[in-house]
Parts: sequence; C-alpha cells; structure tokens
Amino acid sequence: MVPRYTRPVMAAIWSPENRYRIWFEIEALACEAMARYGAIPEESARTIREKGDAAMAAFTQADLDRIDEIEAVTRHDVIAFLTWLAEKVGPDSRFVHLGMTSSDVLDTCLSVQMVQATDLLLKDLDALLEALKGRAFEHKHTLTIGRSHAIHAEPTSFGLKLAGHYAEFARNRERLLRAREEIAVCAISGAVGTYAHIDPRVEEYVAEKLGLQPEGVSTQIIPRDRHAAYFCALAVIASGIERLAVEVRHLQRSEVREAEEFFHPGQKGSSAMPHKRNPVLSENLTGLARLVRSHVIPALENVALWHERDISHSSVERNICPDGTIGLDFALVRLTGMMEKLVVYPDRMQANIESLGGVVHSGEVLLALARAGILREDAYRIVQRNAMETWTKLGQPDGRTFRENLDADPEVAGRVPAEVLDAAMDSRAHLRQLDHTYRRVFGETGPKSA
Amino acid sequence: MVPRYTRPVMAAIWSPENRYRIWFEIEALACEAMARYGAIPEESARTIREKGDAAMAAFTQADLDRIDEIEAVTRHDVIAFLTWLAEKVGPDSRFVHLGMTSSDVLDTCLSVQMVQATDLLLKDLDALLEALKGRAFEHKHTLTIGRSHAIHAEPTSFGLKLAGHYAEFARNRERLLRAREEIAVCAISGAVGTYAHIDPRVEEYVAEKLGLQPEGVSTQIIPRDRHAAYFCALAVIASGIERLAVEVRHLQRSEVREAEEFFHPGQKGSSAMPHKRNPVLSENLTGLARLVRSHVIPALENVALWHERDISHSSVERNICPDGTIGLDFALVRLTGMMEKLVVYPDRMQANIESLGGVVHSGEVLLALARAGILREDAYRIVQRNAMETWTKLGQPDGRTFRENLDADPEVAGRVPAEVLDAAMDSRAHLRQLDHTYRRVFGETGPKSA
Amino acid sequence: MVPRYTRPVMAAIWSPENRYRIWFEIEALACEAMARYGAIPEESARTIREKGDAAMAAFTQADLDRIDEIEAVTRHDVIAFLTWLAEKVGPDSRFVHLGMTSSDVLDTCLSVQMVQATDLLLKDLDALLEALKGRAFEHKHTLTIGRSHAIHAEPTSFGLKLAGHYAEFARNRERLLRAREEIAVCAISGAVGTYAHIDPRVEEYVAEKLGLQPEGVSTQIIPRDRHAAYFCALAVIASGIERLAVEVRHLQRSEVREAEEFFHPGQKGSSAMPHKRNPVLSENLTGLARLVRSHVIPALENVALWHERDISHSSVERNICPDGTIGLDFALVRLTGMMEKLVVYPDRMQANIESLGGVVHSGEVLLALARAGILREDAYRIVQRNAMETWTKLGQPDGRTFRENLDADPEVAGRVPAEVLDAAMDSRAHLRQLDHTYRRVFGETGPKSA
Amino acid sequence: MVPRYTRPVMAAIWSPENRYRIWFEIEALACEAMARYGAIPEESARTIREKGDAAMAAFTQADLDRIDEIEAVTRHDVIAFLTWLAEKVGPDSRFVHLGMTSSDVLDTCLSVQMVQATDLLLKDLDALLEALKGRAFEHKHTLTIGRSHAIHAEPTSFGLKLAGHYAEFARNRERLLRAREEIAVCAISGAVGTYAHIDPRVEEYVAEKLGLQPEGVSTQIIPRDRHAAYFCALAVIASGIERLAVEVRHLQRSEVREAEEFFHPGQKGSSAMPHKRNPVLSENLTGLARLVRSHVIPALENVALWHERDISHSSVERNICPDGTIGLDFALVRLTGMMEKLVVYPDRMQANIESLGGVVHSGEVLLALARAGILREDAYRIVQRNAMETWTKLGQPDGRTFRENLDADPEVAGRVPAEVLDAAMDSRAHLRQLDHTYRRVFGETGPKSA
Repeated sequence: MVPRYTRPVMAAIWSPENRYRIWFEIEALACEAMARYGAIPEESARTIREKGDAAMAAFTQADLDRIDEIEAVTRHDVIAFLTWLAEKVGPDSRFVHLGMTSSDVLDTCLSVQMVQATDLLLKDLDALLEALKGRAFEHKHTLTIGRSHAIHAEPTSFGLKLAGHYAEFARNRERLLRAREEIAVCAISGAVGTYAHIDPRVEEYVAEKLGLQPEGVSTQIIPRDRHAAYFCALAVIASGIERLAVEVRHLQRSEVREAEEFFHPGQKGSSAMPHKRNPVLSENLTGLARLVRSHVIPALENVALWHERDISHSSVERNICPDGTIGLDFALVRLTGMMEKLVVYPDRMQANIESLGGVVHSGEVLLALARAGILREDAYRIVQRNAMETWTKLGQPDGRTFRENLDADPEVAGRVPAEVLDAAMDSRAHLRQLDHTYRRVFGETGPKSA
Repeated sequence: MVPRYTRPVMAAIWSPENRYRIWFEIEALACEAMARYGAIPEESARTIREKGDAAMAAFTQADLDRIDEIEAVTRHDVIAFLTWLAEKVGPDSRFVHLGMTSSDVLDTCLSVQMVQATDLLLKDLDALLEALKGRAFEHKHTLTIGRSHAIHAEPTSFGLKLAGHYAEFARNRERLLRAREEIAVCAISGAVGTYAHIDPRVEEYVAEKLGLQPEGVSTQIIPRDRHAAYFCALAVIASGIERLAVEVRHLQRSEVREAEEFFHPGQKGSSAMPHKRNPVLSENLTGLARLVRSHVIPALENVALWHERDISHSSVERNICPDGTIGLDFALVRLTGMMEKLVVYPDRMQANIESLGGVVHSGEVLLALARAGILREDAYRIVQRNAMETWTKLGQPDGRTFRENLDADPEVAGRVPAEVLDAAMDSRAHLRQLDHTYRRVFGETGPKSA
Repeated sequence: MVPRYTRPVMAAIWSPENRYRIWFEIEALACEAMARYGAIPEESARTIREKGDAAMAAFTQADLDRIDEIEAVTRHDVIAFLTWLAEKVGPDSRFVHLGMTSSDVLDTCLSVQMVQATDLLLKDLDALLEALKGRAFEHKHTLTIGRSHAIHAEPTSFGLKLAGHYAEFARNRERLLRAREEIAVCAISGAVGTYAHIDPRVEEYVAEKLGLQPEGVSTQIIPRDRHAAYFCALAVIASGIERLAVEVRHLQRSEVREAEEFFHPGQKGSSAMPHKRNPVLSENLTGLARLVRSHVIPALENVALWHERDISHSSVERNICPDGTIGLDFALVRLTGMMEKLVVYPDRMQANIESLGGVVHSGEVLLALARAGILREDAYRIVQRNAMETWTKLGQPDGRTFRENLDADPEVAGRVPAEVLDAAMDSRAHLRQLDHTYRRVFGETGPKSA
Repeated sequence: MVPRYTRPVMAAIWSPENRYRIWFEIEALACEAMARYGAIPEESARTIREKGDAAMAAFTQADLDRIDEIEAVTRHDVIAFLTWLAEKVGPDSRFVHLGMTSSDVLDTCLSVQMVQATDLLLKDLDALLEALKGRAFEHKHTLTIGRSHAIHAEPTSFGLKLAGHYAEFARNRERLLRAREEIAVCAISGAVGTYAHIDPRVEEYVAEKLGLQPEGVSTQIIPRDRHAAYFCALAVIASGIERLAVEVRHLQRSEVREAEEFFHPGQKGSSAMPHKRNPVLSENLTGLARLVRSHVIPALENVALWHERDISHSSVERNICPDGTIGLDFALVRLTGMMEKLVVYPDRMQANIESLGGVVHSGEVLLALARAGILREDAYRIVQRNAMETWTKLGQPDGRTFRENLDADPEVAGRVPAEVLDAAMDSRAHLRQLDHTYRRVFGETGPKSA
C-alpha cells in the first residue's frame, strides 16, 4: 500500500522487525515446551529465551542486513533467520526449531500478525460505530426524502438512514470477529503435518501462549480456506464503506446539497475552478474499497495449493495481507473522521422533500383512497394521473401542487375528506416507527421527538 | 446454469412456480397479521387465504402466461402477479399488499428461496463429509508420500490427507450455516423501510411463520451485504472443492497413479487414443469451482446500492442465485460420488515412497545426527550432500540408496548407530500421531493399526 | 442466462442444433481435404457430405435424444455424435474424424460460434453508435452543466457528453474486432497437436472454408489466452455500458431531472407509490454489466491448463460463452433503445446551470483576473472567496449571485471591466471548440449553431 | 509491491521524482505551445522552461518535503506542485497551467509513466521470447510425452511444447503493443474537457512532443476504458506466465523429474528436509500471476466514473499502476532467467514415454487397424481392451507390454503386419511435422534432425 494510504500503527505490524520478533517468540515458546516435555534440555531453552530476548531487544538495521545477507546465499528466509539467531544464541541454538519446519514458524507468525491487524480493525470499527450512532441520534428526527432508484419515494429521517449504515457495520463487526477466529490458529506440526518429529503438546503450548487455537489438520501449512474467508470479510466490509461513501457523494452533489464533507480552511477543490468543494474523501474511499475488494480473488485462488503445500500463496500474501489490512484501516479511520465532521443541511433536506410538489405522498394518498372505498386499481390510476400531472408541470406557470390537483379531480373531490388528505400528506407521519427501529438497531430508542 | 450441471431438485427452488407460491404465502401471511392487528377485516384475510391457496394449488402454465401477459403492460412483475391474484380472489384482493411495497415480497421471497437452497447444500455437505470420513477411516494406515512443492517430502497416510479435506469441509459447513443466518431475514417495512403504512408486527408475524428473522433496518430492501457474505461462503466452499479435485488430478497423473476416478464400463476417454482414462470429473469440478467463485465479485458490487434502494442488483441475482446454488449443489454431489468410488492404489503409494532411494527420510536422519551431537549446520550439510548424491544418480548404474551413501560417509559412519538410522528410515514412524489428529478432526480415533 | 435477458437470435447460436451442425461441417470439410490429399477415398468423402447434409437438414429432437442416449454410455460427447453420424452415413463413416481428436472439433466449433456471436455483437454496436451519434448531433448545442465529482464545474453541451460515450463505444468496436481475430482460429492437429496422424493441409483447408486462421501451435486445443482476451474485451464493453447507464441514472434523479427513460403508457413504477418513474432500464444495465464483467476472472483462470490440455475450461465455457454474449447482446440492444427514446429536458439543464448563482464561471473569471494582471494566487483567493460566499447563501434572503458579489468586491471592482466579466460568464463560450471535437470523433462537425 | 518483487528500474518510473519531472515537462511544453499560439508571452515561456529545468535538475529530498508541506494545507497535489514551481520560477509562473486543469497534468503524466513502464515490459518480453526460442531450438528433437488431462497421450517434442509457450508470449507481445496504444494518449482540454480556456493546438503540441496521441473526447480526464483495457492485457500476460510456471512445476515433481529449476550452490530447499529441491521460482511466479491478474477487477470498476469525472479511480491507480507493472516486470525477468537455466533431463523424458508399456501408441495403432480394414468401432474396442490390460498390470509379474498384448490378440494377429505395428509404435514419427509448426511460429524451421 502506498504511504499516502498507510497509518504507521498498522504498517508496524507488517514490518520485518515485528515479523522477526514473532518468529523468535514462536521458536522460544516451542523450545520451552520441548524442554517441558523432555525433548531438549531445560537449560538450553532458558539460554535460548534469554539470549534471544536480548538480541531482539537490541535488534537494529544491522541485524536486518545480516539476515538479508545470509538469505542471499541460502535463498530461504527462515533458515537465514535461524542462522542469525544461532550467531546470537551460541551452541544451544542447535535445539532451536528442532523437529519443526519453516511453515510452522511462517504460518503461525502470519496468524499472529493477522490477529494484531484485526484487533486494530476492530477498534476502527468501534470508533466508526460510535460516530455513526452519534450522528444517527443527532438526526433522528431530521426529515429527509427517502429515495428509491434515486427518485424521490417517501419521507424518512436522516438518522434512520445512518442507522441502516450503523446496522451494516455492526454486522461487519460480527463478520470480522468470525474472520479473526478463522485465522487465529497455530500450527507446529512439522513436515507434511504428521508431528513425526515433534510432540503435539508443543503446538498446544505455543498456541495457548499466543492466544491461538491449534489447527485441526495442518498438512505442514495452515489451510488457506481460512485466509480466503478472512479476505472475504474484508471485502464485505470494504463494500459497506463504499455504500456509505457513495451515499455521501450523492448527498453532496450540487443539485442535492443535503450534506457536505468538511472543507478545510486553505483547502483547494480545483486548480482551475476556485468555486469547487468536492467530496474527495468519499471518492477516495470508493476507490480504496475497490482495491481491498479485489484481494478476494487471489485469496480464493490460494486455497487449492498442491498436495500438502506449495508456496504460490506466499507472493500473494506478502502483498495482500499488508495492503488489505492497511488499506481497510486507513479507510475506516478516514470514514470515521468524515462522518464525524460531515456538515448536514436539514433545510436543504426539507426543501428537497417539497421540491416535487407533494407527489412523494402518493403512496399514503393511495391508501387513503383505498380506505375510502375506491378499488385499488382505480385508486392507483387516479393517484398516478394526478402525480404525473404535477410532476410534468413542475415550475411551469400552469403547474399545480399534487394537493391542488387532487382537490380539483372529480374522482377524488367529495369522496375523501380534506383532513384525510391533510394527514396523508404529513411527512412527520413517516417517523412514527422510529423508536421501534432504533430500539432494534441500537438497543435504545435515543432522543425523543421535541 | 446449463442443464448439464443442474439437478432438478435445486432447479425447482428457482422455478417461477416456487417463486409465485412463496409470493402468495408472504401476501397471505401479511393479510393474516394485518387482520390480527385490525388493519383489515378478518373475513377478507380468510377469503384471500382460501381462494389464493386454491389458485396456487391449481396453478398451471396458463397462469404463468397470464402473469407474463399482464407484466408486458405494467412492466412490473409484482404488480402483474397481484393483478392475477386479484382475478382469482375477487374484491377482497383490495386488502392484499396493503401498505407494502414490492421489495417486501421480492426480498423476503429471495430469502426463503436461498434458505431452501442452503438447506439442500447442507445436506450435500453432510453426504460429502460422510464419504470423506469413510475413506479417511479406510485408509487411515495407508502409507503414502507427503509432498510439498510437489516434491516428495516425508511419508504420511492417505487417510490423513483425506482428514485434512474433511476438516476443511467441516469448516465450510460452519461457514454455510452462518451464511444461512445472514440471509434468513424478512422485510415487510413498506416504502423506504419506515413502516409508515404498515405495522412492524406484521413483519414479525410473517418472519416467524417463514422461519426468518426480521431485518434490523431494511430501507425498503434487505441490505445486500448479507447476500455478498453468502456468495463469499459459496466461493470459499467452491475453492475447497477445487483443492480436492486438484489433489485427485495429481494422484491420477500417469507418473503417480496412486488413485483414479472410477471408469465406467463403456466409457471412452478419448476419440483418438483408446488407452486414455482421464480424471474428467475432477477437471470438471475445477471448472465449476471457478464459475461459482466468480460470483463473489458481482455480489460484492451489489452492496453499494444507491440511497434506500436501486434495482441494479436484480439482474445479477436473477443469474447468480440459481447459478451459484445449482452449480455448487451439482459439484458437491459429483464430488461425493467421485470420492466414494475413487479407486485407490496403496501399492503404487508404497512404490512412490521408495522411488527416491530413501531420501524422503532426510529430515529424521538430520534429527538423528543432531541428537548424536553433530551441530545442526554440519548435520544439514552432511545430509543434504548424501541426499543430493542419491537423487542425482537415481536409476544409474553407480547410483546408491540414501542409506548406502550415509553408511559410506566418514562423517556419519561410527558416529550414528545403525539402529538409529534404521529407526530414522521407518515410514511407519510418521503415523504415530494419527490418533491425536483423528480425534481432533473426527472426535474419534477410528480404526486401530493392525 | 435467464430467458428474461436472452434474445432468441443469440441463443440460437448456442443451441445444440447449431453446435452439431458446425461439428458436422468441420468433419465433412476435413474429409473433403483428406480426400483431396489422398488420405481417404474421394467417393467416401462425397458420401459423408451428402448423407450427413441430409441428416443435418432433417435433424429433429429425436436426433438430440439419440445422441444423449449414446453419450450416457460413452460419457464422451464427440464420440456420441460420431456414433450417431455413423448410423446415418453408413460404412463410409469409418473415414470420418480419421487422425483427429475431439478437441479439433470442439475447439474449432467454439471458434465458429464465437465468431457468429461476435458478428451479432458488432451489429449491436453499430446500432448503438448510430443512436448515440444521432442524439449527439441533435443536442450538439444543448447547454448543460459539466460536473466533476458530481459538483457543478463548467458548462458544456449535452451532445459533447454523448460524443464522449460515442468515442468510447467506437473504441469498444475496435476492441471487439481484435477480440474476434483472437478467437477466429481453427485447430485440426490431432492428439497433443503434432499432426502425427493428419496432414496440416487439412487444417488449412478447413480453416479457409470456415473463415478462420489456422492456430500456430495448438497442443491439441486452441490456447485459452485467446478466449481470455476475448472475455476481457466483453468486460471492457460491459463497463462502458455501465458508464452510460450510470450517467442516465444520475440525470434522471429527482433533483436533476435533465433526462428520463421513456415511460410506457400503462407502465407502473412502484406498487406502493403511484408517482414513481424509475430509471429501471439503466439500473438493469448496470447489473448486467457486473455480470458480464465477472466472466473475466474464470476466463483468465482457464489459461493455465495443464500440459497439452486439461478439460477444466469446459464447464466454465459452457456457461460464460453463452451467458457473456447473450448478456452483452441483450444489454447493447436495450441500451440502444433506451438512448433512442431518452427524453431530454434542455430547460432543466439550463435551470441547473444557473442554480448555483453563477459560480460555475469561477474558472473563466479566474483567468480574466489573471489576464487583468492579478497574481494567480491572489486571483484564486478572490474568486474562491466570492464563490463560496455565493454558494453558502444560495436561496437565502441575503444571498447574492456570484456576479453581484464580484461587483461588490473591492479587489475586483475597478480592476476588471464589466464587459470582461460579462464575457467570462457566458455559457455559450464553452461550446466554441465543439466543431474541433466533433470532427475528431465523428469525422464531421455536425450541425452548425443556429 | 513489496521490495522483494521490485526491480529498481521499474520502481524509478513510479517515483515522485519522475512524476514531478513529467509534470514539469507537461507544463513547460504547454507554455511553449501557448506562447507559440499567442496566449502567453514567448519570454515567459522561455523563463519557465529555463528556471524549471534548473529546478528539476537540482531536485532533492528538500523539494519533495516542501511540496508535501504545501499539500498539507491545500490538500491538492497539483496545486502544491505548482506553488513550489512558482517559488522557483518567479512571477512568470502566473502563465503556468493557464486554462488547464489538474487532470490535464495528472492524466497525461500517467500516460507517460505507463508508456515508460510498457516499454520496459516489452523489453522483458523480448528477452523471454529470445530465451524460449533458444530452448525450443535446443530441444526441437527432444522426445517427450505429450499429456492431456495429465495422462500420457502421445509423444511430442519438448521443443514443440516450448514453441507453444513462445507463440503465446508472441501474442502477448502484440497485446501489450495494443495496450500501449490504448494508454499513449494526451489530454490538455481544461475543465470538463471543452477547451473553453485553452487552444486545442496546445494539446496537439504537447502530445506530439511526448510521443502521445491527443485524446478524442477527454471530459477533463482520459476515459478509463483505456486503462481497463491495459490492465486486461497485463492480466492475460500474467496468466501466460502462470501457464508456463505450472508446466515447470509439473515437470519437476518427483515422479516426473523431466526438468528442474536451477538449484544454486548453498541454496536450501527446506529447513527440516535437507533433500529438498523445490520449484520455488515457478511457484512464486504462480502467485505473482494471481496478484497481477486481480488488478483487472478494480481497473474495470474504474470505468464508470460519474459524469465528466470523479476521482475514485485515483486511489486504485496509485496502487495498481506501480504494482501491476512492477510485479509483471519482476515476473517476466524471473521467468526468463528460470527458463534460460532450466535443467532438462531428456533421459527421464524418454523413460517416462516408455513407462506405460507402449499404450501411448494406441492412437496410431487404432488408425493402423482401421487402415487394415477393421471397422473403427471394432478397432477402438480391440485397442482399448489391450491398452487397459497393459496398463492395469503395469509392473506386475504377469504384465505384458502393449505390443505383446496386441501380438497375442486373435483379433489383431494375422490381420495387421508386424512392420505396420512397428511403424505405429515409433515415437519419432510424431515429430514429422515439426518443421511445419516451427516455420509457422518462428518463421524458420530451426535445427534439422541429426
């Protein structure tokens, strides 16, 4: 992921330093377990832990260079690291990695990194949920037009719209928790996963210490359906980000102007057109969503590795693991800030509701006519005729509001009392079930109507 | 999905008849609930139910044609159905669909169909798991070579390989159950989801009767992150099918010949080459997996619908909902049959283990040397040298087995007792933790070694 | 592809009848060539042609059933067809398919079908280009606001917008022509493509008769990079359809209302809201674009077949070849009709241009100030300040137009003559290069301004 | 792209320095053109060119930092650069970017970078083609078994296999050339692409100087169908890399051992199993192919930008433009080296041909029987029976070769002369059309058979 979309806190998880730190931890824990179960001397395990901890604490660029230097010869990253470690630990290093295979270290380390990254993403989601809830409560009773097909449908509240996004991100939080479970697994099972050279209790010990579950059957590697499922979760979350970003882009368009991204003092929207204030954050999020979503394909293609393992997944994961989590972390944080600072224009929302001359109440009028005993098919025809008449002449000299047209319609006049039509055209009536929905989504109804 | 890959039982779920049946059920249940909560007359609800049930029971091609005929005018499928229903039900039909919107019917119906399809897929998975378990138990102690990078690594058991696939499909079953939860939701919330014209208790009643959960916030439609998550689950399962199919394709290749798809009497492998017996089922499954997997992209693109709803998801879903579930159903059933009848050749497996002159025991020999006090780095060098020597001269007059080379190596001879090398080169030793893994995967150890 | 999105003319190309017809043609042509080069008797080739032609001319459902019946035993589709053909042709049938392999027939047939489908798609594109050109000429001078980030930018013409889509579809036509070349290839090279049993001149003869090129190296099958490239072209075209569909959806939204899909008499936009007229065609096209686009992934995954061939591509292609071409054909035809009948509202376009109080001229004003000697940075600041002031108070009692604000600004007043500002705020000025662009795109300037 | 898979020469194209260099070049060229057409003073254009050239020549990290600093305020990258440039150029800078919009600079710069990257990729492809041709000529007559479905089919030559990959990469070269044309375009058309403030001749001048074509209709940005088509080409090439990589992985598997990646002295295949020599390069290439291929989805999703432009494509392109070209460059170079050094084992190839007891000649024997007057259906049955008998008893005491079985078959014996069977079982016969194919692919036949 390019630096522009990278937060250092997430990047650190994917740094070589963190990786080597986790590698050492896995090796040291495995030694402790092996010592406990009598496979290697207790004393050696202690030495490995102490000298290794010291080496990791003093880890610098020079160590990175040294490991790279060894890898240039061995062409094997784990062996390069173990060789470096042996230089630090001395003769006891012969007990390190005993009966293990590189995948034990690589895959368990990847699990730890993915768990760390996920925990950060969960915090991001919590902050986003908090922000959405705040705005949803703030605008619980802010009337706005609901739109289907981008055509005015019926009034709703802006808070309810946000509640829908809140509910989606709450589902996304659940999905991410499950995705975390998917990859929070540990494998220390040796070549082709038979535990031929290592006691399964070592795996259990390491897993417990690292907060992981031992893998059921690890065929040397942790099976990649887990990682595929993980990236699916990221992709669904990214798509939820896109949905909210697209909503903001729509609301900010010049003709709608119901909400706007915060525009910083000094900010310039366009080099050529000084009047511009563009929804660049939400557009940026739309693109980031595409990016994170695209990882799902190579992640799925990684599942069908050959026999007990092949390493084709590795070049994919070296990219999509950091890129996916860094990209999503950045996007979630950006989205949270954007939603917190979103400038909302209730007056414009009200004006837009009214801009179609009242036809947005056609559904309630239809019901009123039906209740008044007009056959549904006839009522539909009557209402459609008057709505279309209103719409077609909007803003024209001979244009009339929907109500005016209805009042003048002989099929309506005298059959439906004025107060019934009044009630049918009251936007506030559409908010009557808000408490029901808020309770379902937030577990509380939120602010009462003034 | 082309008929070739379609089972009628799954196709029936996606038939127009089934769809209309469910549409009517939703409308009828909604009427019952509305009557219960006083919105419409009890008597009318009863009439709707009775006449509608009769009409659905007598449903024929003529009804399908009549609905199509109406839709050609209204260009709206739900209105066409309701008009047809009105023709059957009579005046009481004015209470049908009252306060509802088409999406209430369409989306809830889709949920019901997806639940039906999923229940069939779950049965498919159960049968596959059963088949895999059977073969895994049968071949628990069948020695075979484990391969990493398609290169012989160390011995393992064929049953253990199958246990790995079993464990993956058990995870897939869990994923499908969760995916079922994702889409087992009901929405009866009216235009833009405000319940402005309908009591939320109607939704609760219909949901309960249909075995669904009411949607949290349905903005007229059920949010598409649910369906995206569903197709992600199908994609992960498809990828697991591919993994097993690719394994079989590898095992059947001429040079390996460890297993073969059942070849039917009368079957012809090639029009030009009568000797051919090709793994065409597993290749077919590989392709079907690609197909089902590809649905994940449009499903994810469907999430970011505009505002409260747009209908761009519909043309996608009209294809991928049947294609994805029909394709996966067919693939799972085919895979189950293929695995049940898979012809396994334990002799070839044994011959392949031995075909590299014993170098597959290099890992255990390395450990033996290390245990004998040789520094790991030195041991690695010694073992690698003898293994490469063996491998390079395989089948040549001056070729020697790995053991012969070790015995002749001055760095080994005299430092490691013969019985230690004997033990290190015993393939059976790799099976010693089978019970542990079988217990973890199957909850039981399965057959004991003879 | 579901029937709803299928035109019979394209479906016919993918029917079993058409496939068998082409299979026979390939076999018959190959026999003719073999006879010509002395591999089989001339007389036999003639008999095969005559009896085969007769059988194909009389082909009915009974023949389809018979072929299926044979395939149920042989489990091989080409052998089943050849057996049926032998029943029709008699003893001379022993010369049919001689030295050939099934792939020779299957892959060459697929090429013929894809060429047929592509020729239909090219006609579709021609009709679309014609429609777009017509509307682009009609609206060459129809002023409308250009938008970047969905924010009003500067005026442009509606015709120019359409010209941009025309240019994209003209590029798409080029891409489709190249894609046609990619797959217009013939392979008659026998098992693993060595021509061991067949003269390469047979391939050349068949290729020429079918209007195809002989494949360079066909390893038994025609390499799938060709088909992948083909589906890439479809995906790019589908994305172009989406771009235009999304444009129409935006233009039809209630707040914009600059254009509308034609609304048929009797059509109903919503079951609940009689006032609705929704852009359902363009939303439908958006979904179809997602569908066609998704085929690119399995098509790319089909490239890496194993060794000289495996058949995993087949189940993919049996679906995406018809679905992709049928879906795109339907979408292109629907799009053409939609654009031909699109209702355009120039008055709304004009009103929208003016709706932001003239700030859309900020770019030209900026240049005017710069030309008047104000430093660019200062000019930017001045223009941005006045534009934001205008925008913020739009529709408020103390709101002033951009021009009024500029006139009142001491940094502008007196430094820039009124006629310069007049000129800078003339929307028509933005059309001055239309002829240039039209000539580039259409090869002609189209109608002159009135 | 992570550094591990990055060649500096390609990374340099995507560096900020190169980008700013191109930005300046575009602005300077535009000034020259504007001066030529009288829009700005000649003298100013000269000053801008001279001082700008000097500033770019002296460009250091300090300049990067300064630009970042300005961007932190303006939140607009091009304005930040122009402000920095103004600091270097002085008052004449007011003529820089006159009448232009950021997209003019950004998109034309992206075109230049993509052209630079493509030219490097074309060189990579040339080197790969050279390597493949070399090995194809070297092994023109190296017999090997052709495989369909990974089952032995008929003999072919290893050179012919490579010729197939050569032909595919030659097609890929053509595709890349076309993709280069797609994106080798220039847009200098100002806000919403109307040339309202800039002479189209400026665009033509800049385009010519940069070796680009002016865009037909640029709606402010260069339309993204071009970039989508570009990434499609990369994806097809990546899939071709995967096909060859998968071939090598198959050939190196322990049971096949027909070819091997070069194994470096000092290299270690596994930390646990010293005998391992794994095809890690080709596995790595398989993964890189997945990665590059995945970019096609977001690139296609980028096409449908809103109205005249939105910036959602930008975050996608900031990643996939470098990642796609860097990844593909690395993969092509790695593949070339791998193929140049590939260790080929003709003896193993010969042994594998013979390993099935001669059944690989079943096709030719079938033809021989048919030529001898046996009905094709009977001949098929006879050959299949003897081939299956041979195959089933391979390596068993009572096993016989295919020839032995045929000789003992009463339906064959006496009906087909021994020399006809001899000829039918001659592997060399399968090479007889090599010259034909080599001439078609390489334009020359290559080495004559010894």
